[in-house]
Amino acid sequence: MEQTILKANERIDDLQRNGLRIIQDPERFCFGMDAVLLSGFANAREGDEVLDMGTGTGILPLLLSAKTAAGHFTALEIQEESADMARRSVSLNHLEEKISVVQGDIRNVKELFGGSVFDVVTCNPPYMIADHGQQSAQDAKAIARHEVLCTFEDVAKGAAAVLKPGGHFYLVHRPFRLAELICTLTKYKLEPKRMRLVYPYVDREPNMVLLEAVRGGRSRMEVEKPLILQNADQSYTEEIKRDYGF
Amino acid sequence: MEQTILKANERIDDLQRNGLRIIQDPERFCFGMDAVLLSGFANAREGDEVLDMGTGTGILPLLLSAKTAAGHFTALEIQEESADMARRSVSLNHLEEKISVVQGDIRNVKELFGGSVFDVVTCNPPYMIADHGQQSAQDAKAIARHEVLCTFEDVAKGAAAVLKPGGHFYLVHRPFRLAELICTLTKYKLEPKRMRLVYPYVDREPNMVLLEAVRGGRSRMEVEKPLILQNADQSYTEEIKRDYGF
Repeated sequence: MEQTILKANERIDDLQRNGLRIIQDPERFCFGMDAVLLSGFANAREGDEVLDMGTGTGILPLLLSAKTAAGHFTALEIQEESADMARRSVSLNHLEEKISVVQGDIRNVKELFGGSVFDVVTCNPPYMIADHGQQSAQDAKAIARHEVLCTFEDVAKGAAAVLKPGGHFYLVHRPFRLAELICTLTKYKLEPKRMRLVYPYVDREPNMVLLEAVRGGRSRMEVEKPLILQNADQSYTEEIKRDYGF
Repeated sequence: MEQTILKANERIDDLQRNGLRIIQDPERFCFGMDAVLLSGFANAREGDEVLDMGTGTGILPLLLSAKTAAGHFTALEIQEESADMARRSVSLNHLEEKISVVQGDIRNVKELFGGSVFDVVTCNPPYMIADHGQQSAQDAKAIARHEVLCTFEDVAKGAAAVLKPGGHFYLVHRPFRLAELICTLTKYKLEPKRMRLVYPYVDREPNMVLLEAVRGGRSRMEVEKPLILQNADQSYTEEIKRDYGF
Protein backbone atom coordinates (compact mmCIF):
# COMPACT_ATOMS: atom_id res chain seq x y z
CA MET A 1 0.00 0.00 0.00
CA GLU A 2 2.84 2.36 0.85
CA GLN A 3 4.20 1.70 -2.60
CA THR A 4 1.44 3.94 -3.96
CA ILE A 5 3.22 7.02 -2.60
CA LEU A 6 6.35 6.17 -4.61
CA LYS A 7 7.12 7.38 -8.11
CA ALA A 8 9.36 5.65 -10.65
CA ASN A 9 12.91 4.87 -9.38
CA GLU A 10 12.01 5.89 -5.83
CA ARG A 11 12.50 3.70 -2.79
CA ILE A 12 11.80 3.89 0.94
CA ASP A 13 14.84 3.73 3.23
CA ASP A 14 14.72 3.01 6.94
CA LEU A 15 16.60 5.76 8.88
CA GLN A 16 17.27 3.38 11.80
CA ARG A 17 16.06 5.99 14.27
CA ASN A 18 12.64 6.24 15.94
CA GLY A 19 11.18 4.18 13.11
CA LEU A 20 11.74 7.03 10.66
CA ARG A 21 11.71 6.32 6.96
CA ILE A 22 12.63 8.45 3.94
CA ILE A 23 11.80 8.39 0.25
CA GLN A 24 14.84 8.66 -2.02
CA ASP A 25 15.56 8.39 -5.72
CA PRO A 26 19.09 7.12 -6.42
CA GLU A 27 18.87 8.71 -9.89
CA ARG A 28 18.51 12.11 -8.24
CA PHE A 29 20.34 12.40 -4.93
CA CYS A 30 20.55 10.32 -1.77
CA PHE A 31 21.56 11.84 1.54
CA GLY A 32 25.07 11.12 2.74
CA MET A 33 27.12 10.81 5.89
CA ASP A 34 27.43 14.62 5.95
CA ALA A 35 23.70 15.13 6.61
CA VAL A 36 23.75 12.48 9.34
CA LEU A 37 26.79 14.05 11.03
CA LEU A 38 25.23 17.51 10.80
CA SER A 39 22.11 16.20 12.54
CA GLY A 40 24.38 14.95 15.33
CA PHE A 41 26.27 18.27 15.56
CA ALA A 42 23.21 20.55 15.43
CA ASN A 43 21.01 21.34 18.40
CA ALA A 44 17.63 22.94 19.00
CA ARG A 45 15.92 23.78 22.27
CA GLU A 46 12.35 22.96 23.18
CA GLY A 47 9.92 24.94 21.09
CA ASP A 48 12.54 26.34 18.69
CA GLU A 49 11.58 27.41 15.21
CA VAL A 50 14.00 25.70 12.82
CA LEU A 51 14.67 26.31 9.13
CA ASP A 52 16.59 23.86 6.95
CA MET A 53 17.81 25.59 3.79
CA GLY A 54 18.18 23.30 0.78
CA THR A 55 16.58 20.35 2.48
CA GLY A 56 16.68 17.96 -0.49
CA THR A 57 14.66 14.94 0.57
CA GLY A 58 14.12 16.43 4.04
CA ILE A 59 16.70 14.30 5.79
CA LEU A 60 17.80 16.95 8.31
CA PRO A 61 14.35 17.97 9.62
CA LEU A 62 13.41 14.29 9.83
CA LEU A 63 16.48 13.40 11.91
CA LEU A 64 16.29 16.56 14.04
CA SER A 65 12.59 16.01 14.76
CA ALA A 66 13.63 12.75 16.41
CA LYS A 67 16.68 14.16 18.22
CA THR A 68 15.35 17.50 19.53
CA ALA A 69 12.25 19.00 21.11
CA ALA A 70 12.13 21.81 18.53
CA GLY A 71 8.67 23.27 18.02
CA HIS A 72 8.51 23.32 14.26
CA PHE A 73 10.66 22.74 11.18
CA THR A 74 10.47 24.56 7.87
CA ALA A 75 12.19 22.65 5.09
CA LEU A 76 13.07 24.85 2.10
CA GLU A 77 13.94 23.23 -1.23
CA ILE A 78 14.26 24.85 -4.65
CA GLN A 79 13.69 21.73 -6.75
CA GLU A 80 10.00 20.89 -6.98
CA GLU A 81 10.62 17.15 -7.42
CA SER A 82 12.77 17.02 -4.28
CA ALA A 83 10.33 19.17 -2.31
CA ASP A 84 7.54 16.82 -3.37
CA MET A 85 9.54 13.79 -2.27
CA ALA A 86 10.27 15.47 1.09
CA ARG A 87 6.56 16.23 1.53
CA ARG A 88 5.68 12.58 0.93
CA SER A 89 8.36 11.47 3.44
CA VAL A 90 6.84 13.83 6.03
CA SER A 91 3.43 12.22 5.40
CA LEU A 92 4.90 8.73 5.51
CA ASN A 93 6.17 9.53 9.02
CA HIS A 94 2.98 11.35 10.08
CA LEU A 95 4.98 14.50 10.81
CA GLU A 96 2.79 16.97 8.89
CA GLU A 97 2.27 19.08 12.03
CA LYS A 98 5.98 19.17 12.82
CA ILE A 99 7.58 19.72 9.42
CA SER A 100 6.43 22.04 6.60
CA VAL A 101 8.07 21.67 3.22
CA VAL A 102 8.27 24.85 1.15
CA GLN A 103 9.42 25.01 -2.44
CA GLY A 104 11.48 28.15 -2.93
CA ASP A 105 14.86 29.80 -3.38
CA ILE A 106 17.43 30.36 -0.59
CA ARG A 107 18.12 33.74 -2.18
CA ASN A 108 14.54 34.81 -1.34
CA VAL A 109 14.47 33.42 2.17
CA LYS A 110 13.77 36.77 3.85
CA GLU A 111 10.87 37.52 1.48
CA LEU A 112 9.49 34.03 2.06
CA PHE A 113 9.61 33.94 5.87
CA GLY A 114 10.42 37.44 7.13
CA GLY A 115 13.49 38.70 9.02
CA SER A 116 14.69 37.47 12.45
CA VAL A 117 12.12 34.67 12.78
CA PHE A 118 14.09 31.45 13.30
CA ASP A 119 15.97 30.25 16.38
CA VAL A 120 18.00 27.75 14.39
CA VAL A 121 19.00 27.46 10.73
CA THR A 122 20.64 24.33 9.35
CA CYS A 123 22.20 23.87 5.93
CA ASN A 124 24.04 21.15 4.02
CA PRO A 125 24.84 23.35 1.01
CA PRO A 126 26.41 22.48 -2.33
CA TYR A 127 30.14 22.16 -1.71
CA MET A 128 31.68 22.72 -5.10
CA ILE A 129 32.20 26.04 -6.80
CA ALA A 130 30.18 26.02 -10.03
CA ASP A 131 32.31 25.43 -13.08
CA HIS A 132 30.71 27.35 -15.92
CA GLY A 133 29.37 25.12 -18.63
CA GLN A 134 30.10 21.85 -16.91
CA GLN A 135 26.93 21.38 -14.88
CA SER A 136 23.43 21.73 -16.14
CA ALA A 137 21.16 23.72 -13.87
CA GLN A 138 18.52 21.11 -14.69
CA ASP A 139 20.52 18.25 -13.22
CA ALA A 140 19.33 17.43 -9.70
CA LYS A 141 22.71 16.05 -8.60
CA ALA A 142 24.59 19.05 -9.97
CA ILE A 143 22.26 21.44 -8.11
CA ALA A 144 22.77 19.56 -4.86
CA ARG A 145 26.56 19.38 -5.21
CA HIS A 146 27.64 22.49 -7.12
CA GLU A 147 26.87 26.14 -6.52
CA VAL A 148 24.72 26.35 -9.63
CA LEU A 149 21.72 28.04 -8.01
CA CYS A 150 23.29 29.63 -4.92
CA THR A 151 26.75 30.47 -3.61
CA PHE A 152 27.92 30.14 -0.02
CA GLU A 153 27.56 33.88 0.26
CA ASP A 154 23.84 33.53 -0.61
CA VAL A 155 23.54 30.87 2.09
CA ALA A 156 25.23 32.98 4.79
CA LYS A 157 23.34 36.11 3.83
CA GLY A 158 20.04 34.21 3.93
CA ALA A 159 20.75 32.58 7.29
CA ALA A 160 21.76 35.93 8.81
CA ALA A 161 18.57 37.58 7.56
CA VAL A 162 16.11 35.05 8.97
CA LEU A 163 17.88 34.16 12.25
CA LYS A 164 16.87 35.93 15.43
CA PRO A 165 19.74 37.77 17.19
CA GLY A 166 21.59 35.07 19.15
CA GLY A 167 20.15 32.40 16.85
CA HIS A 168 22.28 29.44 15.80
CA PHE A 169 23.39 28.45 12.31
CA TYR A 170 24.67 24.88 11.79
CA LEU A 171 26.33 23.77 8.60
CA VAL A 172 28.54 21.11 7.09
CA HIS A 173 31.02 21.84 4.30
CA ARG A 174 34.38 20.89 2.86
CA PRO A 175 37.58 21.85 4.70
CA PHE A 176 39.24 23.26 1.57
CA ARG A 177 36.79 26.16 1.78
CA LEU A 178 37.23 26.81 5.51
CA ALA A 179 38.91 30.21 5.26
CA GLU A 180 36.21 31.47 2.89
CA LEU A 181 33.43 30.01 5.07
CA ILE A 182 34.72 31.71 8.20
CA CYS A 183 35.25 35.07 6.50
CA THR A 184 31.84 34.99 4.83
CA LEU A 185 30.03 34.02 8.03
CA THR A 186 31.82 36.79 9.91
CA LYS A 187 30.97 39.29 7.17
CA TYR A 188 27.27 38.63 7.87
CA LYS A 189 27.75 38.79 11.68
CA LEU A 190 27.40 35.03 12.01
CA GLU A 191 30.27 34.48 14.43
CA PRO A 192 31.83 30.99 14.21
CA LYS A 193 31.59 29.60 17.75
CA ARG A 194 32.14 25.86 17.38
CA MET A 195 33.91 23.70 14.84
CA ARG A 196 34.54 20.01 14.45
CA LEU A 197 36.66 18.45 11.75
CA VAL A 198 35.67 15.02 10.45
CA TYR A 199 38.58 12.75 9.57
CA PRO A 200 37.86 9.51 7.65
CA TYR A 201 40.79 7.88 9.50
CA VAL A 202 43.04 9.17 12.28
CA ASP A 203 45.97 9.50 9.87
CA ARG A 204 44.11 11.18 6.99
CA GLU A 205 43.11 14.69 6.00
CA PRO A 206 39.61 15.75 7.13
CA ASN A 207 36.92 15.58 4.45
CA MET A 208 34.17 17.46 6.24
CA VAL A 209 33.91 20.40 8.62
CA LEU A 210 30.97 21.01 10.95
CA LEU A 211 30.43 24.63 11.98
CA GLU A 212 28.14 26.43 14.42
CA ALA A 213 27.81 30.20 14.16
CA VAL A 214 25.82 32.56 16.35
CA ARG A 215 24.19 35.67 14.96
CA GLY A 216 25.91 38.58 16.70
CA GLY A 217 28.14 36.36 18.87
CA ARG A 218 31.51 37.59 20.11
CA SER A 219 34.72 36.26 18.62
CA ARG A 220 35.80 33.12 20.43
CA MET A 221 35.67 29.66 18.96
CA GLU A 222 35.57 26.20 20.45
CA VAL A 223 37.34 23.64 18.29
CA GLU A 224 36.20 20.19 19.33
CA LYS A 225 38.04 16.89 19.47
CA PRO A 226 38.45 15.21 16.09
CA LEU A 227 35.54 13.17 14.76
CA ILE A 228 37.17 10.07 13.33
CA LEU A 229 34.90 7.85 11.26
CA GLN A 230 36.73 4.59 10.73
CA ASN A 231 39.42 2.47 12.31
CA ALA A 232 42.37 1.18 10.31
CA ASP A 233 40.44 -2.08 9.70
CA GLN A 234 37.60 0.01 8.14
CA SER A 235 35.19 -0.71 11.00
CA TYR A 236 33.36 2.32 12.35
CA THR A 237 34.84 3.94 15.46
CA GLU A 238 33.08 3.61 18.82
CA GLU A 239 31.77 7.20 18.67
CA ILE A 240 30.18 6.67 15.25
CA LYS A 241 28.59 3.40 16.35
CA ARG A 242 27.34 4.88 19.62
CA ASP A 243 26.06 8.25 18.36
CA TYR A 244 24.94 7.40 14.85
CA GLY A 245 24.06 3.72 15.00
CA PHE A 246 26.20 2.72 12.01
CA MET B 1 84.54 28.55 29.66
CA GLU B 2 81.11 28.70 28.04
CA GLN B 3 79.72 29.67 31.40
CA THR B 4 81.18 33.11 30.86
CA ILE B 5 78.53 33.89 28.24
CA LEU B 6 75.76 33.20 30.75
CA LYS B 7 74.14 35.76 33.03
CA ALA B 8 72.45 35.09 36.35
CA ASN B 9 69.68 32.42 36.21
CA GLU B 10 70.55 31.48 32.62
CA ARG B 11 71.33 27.97 31.45
CA ILE B 12 72.35 26.30 28.21
CA ASP B 13 69.93 23.70 26.84
CA ASP B 14 70.75 21.13 24.18
CA LEU B 15 68.24 21.30 21.29
CA GLN B 16 68.91 17.65 20.36
CA ARG B 17 69.30 18.64 16.73
CA ASN B 18 72.55 19.18 14.78
CA GLY B 19 74.32 19.82 18.07
CA LEU B 20 72.41 23.10 18.50
CA ARG B 21 72.25 24.70 21.94
CA ILE B 22 70.22 27.60 23.30
CA ILE B 23 70.54 29.97 26.24
CA GLN B 24 67.37 30.27 28.33
CA ASP B 25 66.34 31.88 31.59
CA PRO B 26 63.51 30.01 33.34
CA GLU B 27 62.67 33.21 35.22
CA ARG B 28 61.91 34.90 31.91
CA PHE B 29 60.54 32.53 29.29
CA CYS B 30 61.53 29.16 27.92
CA PHE B 31 60.44 27.98 24.49
CA GLY B 32 57.68 25.42 24.37
CA MET B 33 56.32 22.63 22.22
CA ASP B 34 54.57 25.26 20.06
CA ALA B 35 57.87 26.69 18.77
CA VAL B 36 59.18 23.21 18.05
CA LEU B 37 56.00 22.22 16.17
CA LEU B 38 56.08 25.48 14.20
CA SER B 39 59.65 24.73 13.13
CA GLY B 40 58.39 21.37 11.84
CA PHE B 41 55.43 22.93 10.02
CA ALA B 42 57.33 25.85 8.45
CA ASN B 43 59.40 25.60 5.31
CA ALA B 44 61.95 27.73 3.50
CA ARG B 45 63.61 27.16 0.14
CA GLU B 46 67.31 27.41 -0.62
CA GLY B 47 68.50 30.98 -0.33
CA ASP B 48 65.28 32.34 1.18
CA GLU B 49 65.31 35.46 3.29
CA VAL B 50 63.46 34.63 6.51
CA LEU B 51 62.14 36.90 9.26
CA ASP B 52 61.05 35.61 12.66
CA MET B 53 58.87 38.18 14.40
CA GLY B 54 59.04 38.09 18.20
CA THR B 55 61.86 35.57 18.27
CA GLY B 56 62.30 35.48 22.07
CA THR B 57 65.44 33.44 22.65
CA GLY B 58 65.81 32.78 18.90
CA ILE B 59 64.48 29.22 19.01
CA LEU B 60 62.78 29.33 15.59
CA PRO B 61 65.70 30.65 13.53
CA LEU B 62 68.00 28.21 15.32
CA LEU B 63 65.80 25.20 14.52
CA LEU B 64 65.02 26.38 10.96
CA SER B 65 68.71 27.00 10.22
CA ALA B 66 69.21 23.30 10.85
CA LYS B 67 66.11 22.13 8.95
CA THR B 68 66.20 24.34 5.85
CA ALA B 69 68.65 25.74 3.31
CA ALA B 70 67.37 29.29 3.82
CA GLY B 71 69.91 31.96 2.96
CA HIS B 72 69.57 34.19 6.00
CA PHE B 73 67.43 34.69 9.09
CA THR B 74 66.50 37.96 10.74
CA ALA B 75 65.31 37.47 14.31
CA LEU B 76 63.28 40.43 15.60
CA GLU B 77 62.69 40.79 19.33
CA ILE B 78 61.34 43.78 21.24
CA GLN B 79 62.82 42.90 24.65
CA GLU B 80 66.47 43.85 24.85
CA GLU B 81 67.29 41.13 27.40
CA SER B 82 65.76 38.43 25.19
CA ALA B 83 67.42 39.83 22.06
CA ASP B 84 70.75 39.79 23.89
CA MET B 85 70.22 36.19 24.97
CA ALA B 86 69.31 35.23 21.37
CA ARG B 87 72.47 36.97 20.10
CA ARG B 88 74.60 34.99 22.55
CA SER B 89 72.90 31.73 21.48
CA VAL B 90 73.70 32.55 17.85
CA SER B 91 77.35 33.05 18.84
CA LEU B 92 77.37 29.88 20.89
CA ASN B 93 76.33 27.98 17.74
CA HIS B 94 78.68 29.94 15.45
CA LEU B 95 75.74 31.06 13.33
CA GLU B 96 76.56 34.79 13.21
CA GLU B 97 76.61 34.76 9.39
CA LYS B 98 73.29 32.96 9.16
CA ILE B 99 71.18 34.67 11.84
CA SER B 100 71.02 38.40 12.68
CA VAL B 101 69.22 39.40 15.84
CA VAL B 102 67.55 42.82 15.75
CA GLN B 103 65.98 44.51 18.75
CA GLY B 104 62.82 46.27 17.63
CA ASP B 105 59.05 46.44 17.50
CA ILE B 106 56.84 44.29 15.22
CA ARG B 107 54.72 47.39 14.70
CA ASN B 108 57.68 49.07 12.96
CA VAL B 109 58.71 46.11 10.87
CA LYS B 110 58.27 47.85 7.51
CA GLU B 111 60.32 50.85 8.65
CA LEU B 112 63.02 48.52 9.98
CA PHE B 113 63.41 46.26 6.96
CA GLY B 114 61.49 47.79 4.03
CA GLY B 115 58.43 46.46 2.18
CA SER B 116 58.26 43.16 0.23
CA VAL B 117 61.72 41.94 1.24
CA PHE B 118 61.23 38.53 2.88
CA ASP B 119 60.35 35.18 1.27
CA VAL B 120 59.22 33.71 4.57
CA VAL B 121 57.96 35.18 7.84
CA THR B 122 57.47 33.05 10.95
CA CYS B 123 55.79 34.04 14.21
CA ASN B 124 54.91 32.44 17.52
CA PRO B 125 52.95 35.42 18.83
CA PRO B 126 51.45 36.08 22.24
CA TYR B 127 48.22 34.06 22.38
CA MET B 128 46.18 35.78 25.02
CA ILE B 129 44.22 38.97 24.61
CA ALA B 130 45.66 41.56 26.99
CA ASP B 131 43.58 42.03 30.09
CA HIS B 132 43.94 45.67 31.11
CA GLY B 133 45.69 46.06 34.41
CA GLN B 134 46.47 42.39 34.94
CA GLN B 135 49.80 42.14 33.15
CA SER B 136 52.72 44.45 33.54
CA ALA B 137 54.30 45.52 30.26
CA GLN B 138 57.63 45.09 32.08
CA ASP B 139 57.09 41.41 32.76
CA ALA B 140 58.93 39.27 30.20
CA LYS B 141 56.52 36.34 30.53
CA ALA B 142 53.46 38.59 30.16
CA ILE B 143 54.91 40.18 27.01
CA ALA B 144 55.59 36.76 25.50
CA ARG B 145 52.15 35.38 26.37
CA HIS B 146 49.72 38.31 26.30
CA GLU B 147 49.10 40.93 23.64
CA VAL B 148 50.59 43.67 25.79
CA LEU B 149 52.88 45.14 23.14
CA CYS B 150 51.23 43.95 19.92
CA THR B 151 47.90 42.50 18.81
CA PHE B 152 47.40 39.77 16.23
CA GLU B 153 46.33 42.49 13.83
CA ASP B 154 49.76 44.14 14.26
CA VAL B 155 51.39 40.80 13.54
CA ALA B 156 49.36 40.16 10.35
CA LYS B 157 49.78 43.72 9.13
CA GLY B 158 53.54 43.54 9.70
CA ALA B 159 53.95 40.19 7.98
CA ALA B 160 51.91 41.38 4.97
CA ALA B 161 54.04 44.51 4.67
CA VAL B 162 57.44 42.82 4.62
CA LEU B 163 56.59 39.64 2.68
CA LYS B 164 57.21 39.52 -1.05
CA PRO B 165 54.11 38.76 -3.16
CA GLY B 166 53.69 34.99 -2.99
CA GLY B 167 55.76 34.87 0.20
CA HIS B 168 54.81 32.50 3.02
CA PHE B 169 53.74 33.31 6.56
CA TYR B 170 53.87 30.52 9.16
CA LEU B 171 52.39 30.87 12.61
CA VAL B 172 51.19 28.93 15.61
CA HIS B 173 48.30 30.09 17.78
CA ARG B 174 45.41 28.93 19.93
CA PRO B 175 42.34 27.34 18.27
CA PHE B 176 39.90 29.52 20.22
CA ARG B 177 41.06 32.46 18.11
CA LEU B 178 40.87 30.64 14.77
CA ALA B 179 37.99 32.62 13.25
CA GLU B 180 39.67 35.92 14.13
CA LEU B 181 43.06 34.69 12.84
CA ILE B 182 41.61 33.66 9.49
CA CYS B 183 39.62 36.87 9.05
CA THR B 184 42.57 39.07 10.03
CA LEU B 185 44.99 37.25 7.73
CA THR B 186 42.52 37.52 4.86
CA LYS B 187 42.00 41.22 5.56
CA TYR B 188 45.73 41.75 4.91
CA LYS B 189 45.69 39.54 1.78
CA LEU B 190 47.51 36.76 3.59
CA GLU B 191 45.40 33.88 2.28
CA PRO B 192 45.29 30.86 4.65
CA LYS B 193 46.48 27.94 2.51
CA ARG B 194 47.37 25.21 4.98
CA MET B 195 46.26 24.38 8.51
CA ARG B 196 47.06 21.67 11.00
CA LEU B 197 45.38 21.23 14.34
CA VAL B 198 47.43 19.85 17.22
CA TYR B 199 45.54 17.57 19.58
CA PRO B 200 47.20 16.57 22.88
CA TYR B 201 45.38 13.20 22.67
CA VAL B 202 43.16 11.72 19.95
CA ASP B 203 40.05 12.18 22.11
CA ARG B 204 40.75 15.74 23.27
CA GLU B 205 40.19 19.25 21.97
CA PRO B 206 43.13 20.74 20.02
CA ASN B 207 45.33 23.16 21.94
CA MET B 208 47.34 24.58 19.05
CA VAL B 209 46.75 25.49 15.44
CA LEU B 210 49.50 25.75 12.83
CA LEU B 211 48.73 28.01 9.86
CA GLU B 212 50.43 28.82 6.57
CA ALA B 213 49.25 31.85 4.62
CA VAL B 214 50.45 33.10 1.25
CA ARG B 215 50.57 36.79 0.41
CA GLY B 216 48.10 37.26 -2.44
CA GLY B 217 47.17 33.55 -2.67
CA ARG B 218 43.77 32.47 -3.94
CA SER B 219 41.17 31.10 -1.57
CA ARG B 220 41.62 27.37 -1.15
CA MET B 221 42.89 25.74 2.00
CA GLU B 222 44.49 22.40 2.73
CA VAL B 223 43.57 21.08 6.16
CA GLU B 224 46.06 18.41 7.13
CA LYS B 225 45.67 15.22 9.11
CA PRO B 226 45.52 15.73 12.87
CA LEU B 227 48.80 16.11 14.73
CA ILE B 228 48.32 14.03 17.86
CA LEU B 229 50.99 14.45 20.50
CA GLN B 230 50.50 11.66 23.00
CA ASN B 231 49.06 8.19 23.25
CA ALA B 232 46.60 7.25 26.00
CA ASP B 233 49.54 5.97 28.09
CA GLN B 234 51.15 9.46 27.82
CA SER B 235 53.99 8.23 25.60
CA TYR B 236 54.65 10.41 22.55
CA THR B 237 53.08 9.26 19.29
CA GLU B 238 55.24 7.79 16.51
CA GLU B 239 55.04 11.00 14.44
CA ILE B 240 56.28 13.14 17.33
CA LYS B 241 59.11 10.75 18.08
CA ARG B 242 60.10 10.46 14.41
CA ASP B 243 59.82 14.14 13.39
CA TYR B 244 60.75 15.92 16.58
CA GLY B 245 62.98 13.50 18.42
CA PHE B 246 61.02 13.63 21.68
